[in-house]
Formats: sequence, structure tokens, C-alpha cells
Amino acid sequence: MGEVETRLREQARQIFAAALQAVDPKEAVRRYLHRQGDDLVVEGKRYHLPEYAGVYVVGAGKAGAAMGVAVEEIVGEWLCGGIVTVKYGHTDRVQKITLVEAGHPVPDEAGVSGARQMVELLQARGERDLVICLISGGGSALLPAPVPQITLSEKQEVTRLLLRCGANINEINAVRKHISQVKGGQLARLAAPATLLTLILSDVIGDPLDVIASGPTVPDQSTFQDCFRIFEKYQILDEVPPSIRAYLQQGVEGKIPETPKAGDPVFAKTQNVIIGSNILAVKAAAAQAEILGLRPLILSTFVEGETREIARMHAAMAKEVLHSGHPIPPPACLISGGETTVTIRGDGLGGRNQEFVLAAALDIAGWPNVVILSGGTDGTDGPTDAAGAIADGETVRRAEHLGLDPLHFLQRNDSYHFFSPLGDLLITGPTNTNVMDVRLVLIGKESTPPP
Amino acid sequence: MGEVETRLREQARQIFAAALQAVDPKEAVRRYLHRQGDDLVVEGKRYHLPEYAGVYVVGAGKAGAAMGVAVEEIVGEWLCGGIVTVKYGHTDRVQKITLVEAGHPVPDEAGVSGARQMVELLQARGERDLVICLISGGGSALLPAPVPQITLSEKQEVTRLLLRCGANINEINAVRKHISQVKGGQLARLAAPATLLTLILSDVIGDPLDVIASGPTVPDQSTFQDCFRIFEKYQILDEVPPSIRAYLQQGVEGKIPETPKAGDPVFAKTQNVIIGSNILAVKAAAAQAEILGLRPLILSTFVEGETREIARMHAAMAKEVLHSGHPIPPPACLISGGETTVTIRGDGLGGRNQEFVLAAALDIAGWPNVVILSGGTDGTDGPTDAAGAIADGETVRRAEHLGLDPLHFLQRNDSYHFFSPLGDLLITGPTNTNVMDVRLVLIGKESTPPP
Repeated sequence: MGEVETRLREQARQIFAAALQAVDPKEAVRRYLHRQGDDLVVEGKRYHLPEYAGVYVVGAGKAGAAMGVAVEEIVGEWLCGGIVTVKYGHTDRVQKITLVEAGHPVPDEAGVSGARQMVELLQARGERDLVICLISGGGSALLPAPVPQITLSEKQEVTRLLLRCGANINEINAVRKHISQVKGGQLARLAAPATLLTLILSDVIGDPLDVIASGPTVPDQSTFQDCFRIFEKYQILDEVPPSIRAYLQQGVEGKIPETPKAGDPVFAKTQNVIIGSNILAVKAAAAQAEILGLRPLILSTFVEGETREIARMHAAMAKEVLHSGHPIPPPACLISGGETTVTIRGDGLGGRNQEFVLAAALDIAGWPNVVILSGGTDGTDGPTDAAGAIADGETVRRAEHLGLDPLHFLQRNDSYHFFSPLGDLLITGPTNTNVMDVRLVLIGKESTPPP
Repeated sequence: MGEVETRLREQARQIFAAALQAVDPKEAVRRYLHRQGDDLVVEGKRYHLPEYAGVYVVGAGKAGAAMGVAVEEIVGEWLCGGIVTVKYGHTDRVQKITLVEAGHPVPDEAGVSGARQMVELLQARGERDLVICLISGGGSALLPAPVPQITLSEKQEVTRLLLRCGANINEINAVRKHISQVKGGQLARLAAPATLLTLILSDVIGDPLDVIASGPTVPDQSTFQDCFRIFEKYQILDEVPPSIRAYLQQGVEGKIPETPKAGDPVFAKTQNVIIGSNILAVKAAAAQAEILGLRPLILSTFVEGETREIARMHAAMAKEVLHSGHPIPPPACLISGGETTVTIRGDGLGGRNQEFVLAAALDIAGWPNVVILSGGTDGTDGPTDAAGAIADGETVRRAEHLGLDPLHFLQRNDSYHFFSPLGDLLITGPTNTNVMDVRLVLIGKESTPPP
């Protein structure tokens, strides 16, 4: 490995670490939730704690426990208790809040039971209570609360059906919200007439409040009627479980209340605040790059699409930086966020971040002075113990020297087994946060392309 | 269409026109080939015309005729004649140069005949002659000169074989160069001991001289031995036509001279000059954007990969510009070049540029103040009469209003029939040049994303 590459790799790791630190759930809560005497202050809004009969915490998501610890710290003696559902093993030292561990990404009965307790806690709240709701990545699956007429497995069946026919996330959410007790603003309705403050760690591109964890405390735009339109569009009406069809039909007929819409009085005392998101991580990466003497350029936090092709676009930009100093002269650090997808072609082990780096490594093979890193902010890329990987222009040659054919590993989606023998996995351990991915392209001093 | 979008569309068309103008073959020749009295001056190098017994032009490519006209203009009375092969219909008003029209992208006998005449012209040249060689896109197919032991159809068969097994362009070229009389520096050998000046309009990413038109006047890096290694790598040795195997075997045994390598004396009097390339078009686009009050940002001229996914990355950057002013604050114009590929999935009509715009239109649907244009600099996108297409955030809605389902057209690779009824095709007519594609993403005044 060249001297420049060795330095760039070290810098890439430091920049990624800075990005992670910026979206640490406790740090994120502390940055937005301030205690001033007996007041809680959030983005200029004041909650005078002695006014409330009780302060309670609810919520769901992978970062729920860590967020809970920070809230307990800040609200202190005023906190009465609460219940937060987290993924199995994602616990922390909460004192007054009850943690429920449940299944993710596939919801389970533990999640249903947690949601039931949460609904009871919310229904018991009165006008003089304050409810703090903590939402983070995974919140939707961790808070399964189908209406009593529908079982969890029926709900899962309709989700599978929608996924299979290619419905988009808005369409899937429209249906899920209308067979749930909490999604689509209905948690706010349960909490009313209490005051409701929701702190959100966003794991969705563009931070749309009604999409993150299916927007439990946010006005919903979809309707019962929409659900049938979606079933008809994809011609799956006949396959939808009868209990779901019957329930939604009652909704269309007005026998069941719609999800609350914008302007609904249930939101009169609701504040929704995004306390952490991909752009925060990306901006922290840019700041760290600058500290290290690299010119940062934030490309986008809206990145979606097929991982290996998105990687090619990043590699193309690295080459142009080296070739002509566009879009920014070296030394530079191109940064992107968001979340790509992987179309599974083989039976290998990997994740979108590792696959990104593998595909990019193929394109920059032979180019000096460039290092590429991609990592998931949750520290877990796909079903592996790595957050991502790191590569440079020598990676392909080093791999071939070890008898590893990079293209073969890419074709089999086996990026983990490619980077593991190279020692190029990025290992952070679970971070208990999730604001999607951070990708870094570091370009060292100016250079000419390979001969 | 909104007022901002209407203005941005007009600006996008102006910017694309400026890019085309910068790579007009005649303009390109005039920019590099200067006449000072009886001297021809090219990048500081002087050719004193009265010194030469004769000045001749050879060459091949879609821009050959236009380049020839400009050379005739500049060299004037000193020019003795020449022969240039162009694609059928790509002619221009040359006076002393003979134009041969031939098949492209599939070579034909007219091309073989043209190459034969060119070889004869070159072999007749002596130490005191000057040969000006004009290379542009399509030059490889338009100059088919298999060695006498191999037929054109055998040569085509081995190319098909290599393409089918997934060989890369360097591997395919290694074989093609070693069964050709002119490729891989061999045109320079034929021209020697004459002085040789090659003017190149590059249609290859990164402008590698040994790849453009298979590098007829440039040192070759590959060997006869490499050809067998490639056949063995893809396990196709048995399928290679026996005449080709026999010829290459003679090469391995040293009975046929290798293609000339770097340092070979045949290149002692050779100057290769790139007079036009994708970066020139992209830089002209940037300059025009600036004139129109938009901040230009050149992303890369090295863009490769699956068109619809590369489009998503461009759309993601447009969104970030609107959302946070990164990578550059609006009003802005993101510019990229290079050449993407399309994996054919359907039986529709379109080209990579039209497909790029269709895919991007889906991602920016509903976003205000953004316009996307993609066009091929040759004016012909795929097998259509359009150079590309143009779209904005309203395009999807307008299409749906006409009963056109954008996703359906994308799935069928039918972008031409999507944009045609919308009036959003980009029509320039054939430009007689080719420096790959130019993509533009224009973002108007700041705005917030759609609700």
C-alpha cells in the first residue's frame, strides 16, 4: 500500500468515526432537549415541567434505549415512567423506563405485547400529562399494533403481498397505517388530550415525518379508499386476507374513523422534532474532512438505486478529481449518504456498503491516491459483523495476489469474504443508532491517471 | 409547466448547443492546426511544408469528412490528396481528399476496400512525405483491415465470441490489433519513414490513445501471447476460427512482427494530438451555464454504468441542491459526460440518453425547479432520430395525464415513445461528431421539496 493511501485510509476512518459520533442517540437527544431550571426547552418551545401531572416516555426503535437514557438524565426527577420497545439486545441502563425487547425486521408477539402496554399507558393519559415519544430506525416493525379484528400474521401477509407486486413504500404504508392502532398519526390520537413531544432519529431518505416509523405522531395523507385503489392497481384484491378487506371496507363506509389528517385537533399539542438524520452525519464527516486538510464536497443524502452502479458513479467522480480537479480539486473528500439497494444475484455474504466498496474498487483499480469507504451508521452491514469496507486503487491487485477474483465475489454478492482476508472490513460494532449510510471518496494530492 | 421550468428548459438547450459547438469537428481542427506562413503549427510543433515532397491525408471515423474539409482549408495548396473512410451519408465538401463511405457499426466490404486503398497510399510514402491522419468515433469499424490470411467474417466472428464471453474492451482490442494491418500502431509502421501527424476526436472515456479507434498510430501494449491467454481465460480457444489461431501462433513463434511498442523507431516522427473530447464539451457547457447565471459543477467525464441507476444518482444530487444547497447552491447546473450502457429488457425504442432522462424524471417527479437533459453529441441516441430528451418535475404528471405510465415505458426500454408525445425529445440532427454524451441537471432558485 502506498504512503498516500495509508494516510488516506486512516483519515477515512477518522471521518467516518466523526459521522457516527454526530448521530449518537444520546448526543442527539442532548443537542435538542435542554433543561433550563424547571423548563424543558426544545427548539424554542418551552415545557414547564411543574405544570404537568406526569411526564411519560413511549417509543420504539433500535436507538430507543440510548435515547431513553438521555431523556431520563435530562428530565430527571420529573419523569414518572414509560415503555420503549427495542430490538433484541439493543438495551441500555434506563432506570424508570421499561424496555421491551422484540423482533426486527420481522415483528413478533413480544412486539405486539409491548405495543399493547404502550397503548394502555397512552389511553390512561389526561390533559395535564406530557408524553415524550422516541422514534428511531426499526420503529415500525418494533411497534406492531394491528387493530383487534386483524392478526399479526394477516398483517404480515398483506405486507408481503404488497412487496411482491412492487408497491412502493408510500403504498405499503397507506395500507399498514389503516390496519394499525398507532401508525399514521394514531399514536397522537391515543395520547390526546395529553401534550406530546416526539423526538425522531430519521432513517428515511429526505426525512419525511409521515414515513419514518410510519409516522405515529404525524398527520396522515392516505385514506381507506386509497387502500382499495392500491389493491386494484396491483390486482391483488382477491389475495388480501378477508379480515383485512372487511375492516378496510368498514373504514370506507365511515364506520371506523380515518387516520388523523393535517389540522386534526389531536395534533394541537404535538411537537415533532428530528434530532438526528443522515445529513447530520454527512455534515459532521465534511467538517472532519476539513479539519484533516481535505476539501469536502457533499454530493447528496438522497442516494438510492442499485449499489454497484451507484458505486461506479462515485468512482467516476474520483477519477475526474484526479484527472482535472473537477468537481473539486484534490486533496478532496466526496461524501454521500442515503441508502442504496442490492439486487441479490448470488448466495454470498455481504451488505450494501461492502458491495459498494467492492464495485468501486474494480473501477479505481490501478489509480493512485484514492481511497473509498462506505459504512452503515448502525454498524451492521447486511447480516455481517462489519459496518462496511475500505479500498484503494491497489485493492484489486492485492486481492488477485491472494487468489481472489474481485468480479467473481461481486457477482456472488460475497463482498464480506472478499474484504475479510484483505483485512479491509470496517468494524465498529453495533452503534445503537441508524441514519442510513455514509460513503467517503478520499482523493490525495494531484496525480495523473495510470499509464 | 412552471415559469421556472420553462426558463430552465430553454437554458438547458442553450447549454447543450454550446457543448456541441465546442466539439464541432471543423472547429476542433481549426483550434489545434494553425497555419503560420508556410508552417503548420500544432501544439508548438512546427511542420515546414516546403520541406515535404508531399502532404497526404488518411483516416477514418464519423467526423472524417468534416475534419478533412478543415484540413484542406488550412493546408491548402500543399495538400496532395488522401483517403478518408466515413460512415454512409456522413460526407462533406472535400476537394482533394477521396471519401469512402462504409458500414458502421458493422464493418463491410466497402470498408475493407477503403482500408486497402489507404494501406497502398501509406506504403507509397517516403521519408520526405507528411501524412496527416484523422481519427474519430467509429474509426475502428470503418477501417477493417484484417491481415490477408484472415477474412472479415472470421475477424467478426472472433469479436462476437469475445463480446459474448464478457471480455473487456482491452482484451477485445488486444486480439483485434493482432489480426489487423493497421490497428495497434501498425498504421504508423505503414506510414514510416514519412512524418505522421494524427488528429484525434476522442469517443472513449479517459481518452486512452491506444484504445481510440484501436490506436492505429500509437504504441501497443498487448502481445500475440496475450491473445492466447485471453482465449484460455474465457475458454474459447476451440471456438476461435482456425485461420486466426494459426496466424496468432505464427506471431507467438516470432514469424510475424509484433505490433510496435513504446520506443519503436516507427514512432520517431509521430505526433498524436487529441483535438476534441468529452471534457471539452463538458467544459463548454460549464462556461455557457455560467454565462446564463447558473453555477456550474462538472461531476465527471468518466461516467459509465447502467443508465437508469446513474440517472438516480444525478436525481439524488438535484434533490440535495434543492434541499440543502449541496454540492452547490442553486441556481446551479450539474454537468456530466462519458457514456453509460443500457441492459436491454424490453422491445421498445430509445437510447441511453432518453432512458437516462426517463429514469431521472421518475425520481424528480413532484420536485419543482429542476430540469434534466441528456444528449449524445453525435445527435443520434440509439436507433432514433433524437439526440436525447429533456424533463422536469412535472413530466411524470403530464405523461400520466396523457395515459402514459412512465415505469412501463422504462421497463420496456421505450423512452422514445414516452418523450415523443410529450414533445420532450431533443432533436439536433446528426452532428458529424462524437465525443460521447453530455448530461445536464439544472436547478433553479432555492425551493423546498414537495410536501
